[in-house]
Amino acid sequence: MSIVVIAPEPHLAEVKSKLCLLLPEVSVFTINEVENTDDIDFAVLWKKTPEHLKDFPKLKLVCSLGAGVDHIMSYALPNNLKIARIGDAGLSGKMSKYVQAAIYHWEHRFLEYAKYQSQNLWKPMIPRKINTVGIMGLGVIGTRVAKDLVSNGYKVKGYSRSLKSIEFVYTFAGENNLESFLENLDCLVCLLPLTDQTKHIVNLPVFQQLNKGAFFINVARGAVLNENDLLEALELGFISEAFLDVFEKEPLPTEHPFWSHTKISITPHVASLTDLDRACKQLAENYFRLKRGDELLFEVDRVKGY
Amino acid sequence: MSIVVIAPEPHLAEVKSKLCLLLPEVSVFTINEVENTDDIDFAVLWKKTPEHLKDFPKLKLVCSLGAGVDHIMSYALPNNLKIARIGDAGLSGKMSKYVQAAIYHWEHRFLEYAKYQSQNLWKPMIPRKINTVGIMGLGVIGTRVAKDLVSNGYKVKGYSRSLKSIEFVYTFAGENNLESFLENLDCLVCLLPLTDQTKHIVNLPVFQQLNKGAFFINVARGAVLNENDLLEALELGFISEAFLDVFEKEPLPTEHPFWSHTKISITPHVASLTDLDRACKQLAENYFRLKRGDELLFEVDRVKGY
Repeated sequence: MSIVVIAPEPHLAEVKSKLCLLLPEVSVFTINEVENTDDIDFAVLWKKTPEHLKDFPKLKLVCSLGAGVDHIMSYALPNNLKIARIGDAGLSGKMSKYVQAAIYHWEHRFLEYAKYQSQNLWKPMIPRKINTVGIMGLGVIGTRVAKDLVSNGYKVKGYSRSLKSIEFVYTFAGENNLESFLENLDCLVCLLPLTDQTKHIVNLPVFQQLNKGAFFINVARGAVLNENDLLEALELGFISEAFLDVFEKEPLPTEHPFWSHTKISITPHVASLTDLDRACKQLAENYFRLKRGDELLFEVDRVKGY
Repeated sequence: MSIVVIAPEPHLAEVKSKLCLLLPEVSVFTINEVENTDDIDFAVLWKKTPEHLKDFPKLKLVCSLGAGVDHIMSYALPNNLKIARIGDAGLSGKMSKYVQAAIYHWEHRFLEYAKYQSQNLWKPMIPRKINTVGIMGLGVIGTRVAKDLVSNGYKVKGYSRSLKSIEFVYTFAGENNLESFLENLDCLVCLLPLTDQTKHIVNLPVFQQLNKGAFFINVARGAVLNENDLLEALELGFISEAFLDVFEKEPLPTEHPFWSHTKISITPHVASLTDLDRACKQLAENYFRLKRGDELLFEVDRVKGY
């Protein structure tokens, strides 16, 4: 049993060396180093096309180095190939802080004050106040974000595919309950995985059902949002500002209208960067589980798509 | 015993009407309404010159509507005139959130990303991490900010005139210990009252002793900072960015170099706006205490100056 790591530099060298330390008995290769492709049964894939996977006929498991696997799922893979992802590895705590940072940014009107600063304009305003935050997506990360927002004094509603129970969070599930979930939200945070079902799920009718002038945060995947509908929702005042870390096409194309929009704040997919140390420990654990035939950590459900 | 309220509109009308509701037996006047100046023994002063106070020969107590009284103390007032301020009235919680908002803003590099956004530039960077925050000023507000930062996982050092004891906060007092306090700080938050002793206390040597490239937040009073020294500290890289809510002259003059500085974020003295409801309840309580001759809430020490 050998491992191949398929990732761009500098992560490639870093992941390989960490795995070698954690699994001293195991051969770990980069894609160019593999001599016997039949020998590879475990692949680590990050920010590279899954097409490389077809080179390894005996592959049993492919692990993403992030929480999302939409880049892997969108590719036709053999049915018996198992897929896993990174479950937490510090991602949740980072994401939670990023979401709180964006919320404070909006509540304190930092974007507006930055605009006034560029005009040498002293213009005190009453701060905004979010009473209720809605979180779409209640996986490991969404649940952590929800709990932290509750601790920070916000009323929190959560929406997911199947009904979850989280203390002090009002939870909703399924399309039929989307409307009740969206009711009375001052802020909508998107943390859904990207699947066929969630593509463009955040659209104009969704924005229209929030409290007028609500705040939208997308830290999930760009294609969960209908980007044109966001522009329209901003134009119509359904949304006052948006904070976006992810985009349908990344890097965001230079000519994209989001760049120069005065009510959109852009960060380049950095809300929650994988901690490679912790991620590699999960990879090593999954290597042992695969070898023993045990249940894998954070295995992806091929039907659900996450 | 009657009350005069000296404040700009719209606060003037609001404070007067709230005090009338809280003290139905008492006459509350605006400065233009006072007929018998001898009748006034309680003045509420906000954002107006203390010069008006000399019109009331029998005045016993003047209350500021904010946490600071430097605007009152800078004026020569009779020695027997008592001075009080607003102690908390929600100020601490608001200030604490503002400070956390500024810290997250710096840690997540939102200012740099805003600059890159204006250039249509996708440029992911590793987030910054603050390990140790130093807080200058450990009054009611500074103590609350320190405690909240401890809860949020930061190591916190505190500096004050006399030594304070706050759980999990490393406290220092007096000029002789300023150097030890400044050692190893990634972020310096100024919450000192403005007095003769604290004027320009935050200067180039202070910035020089912080960890290189530290973050500076001023939410106290503008004149606690030597503004030219901040510009120099930014130029020399002692400070990477500053978040400023207060300025030596307010509104910040149009020609001031802070406005266009790419490493300074400006908000117009809004970090912690007085909640007039809660403030007026404190004023009413002090009215009763003055009448009974009891110890006042948040009376200012004329020698210390706060």
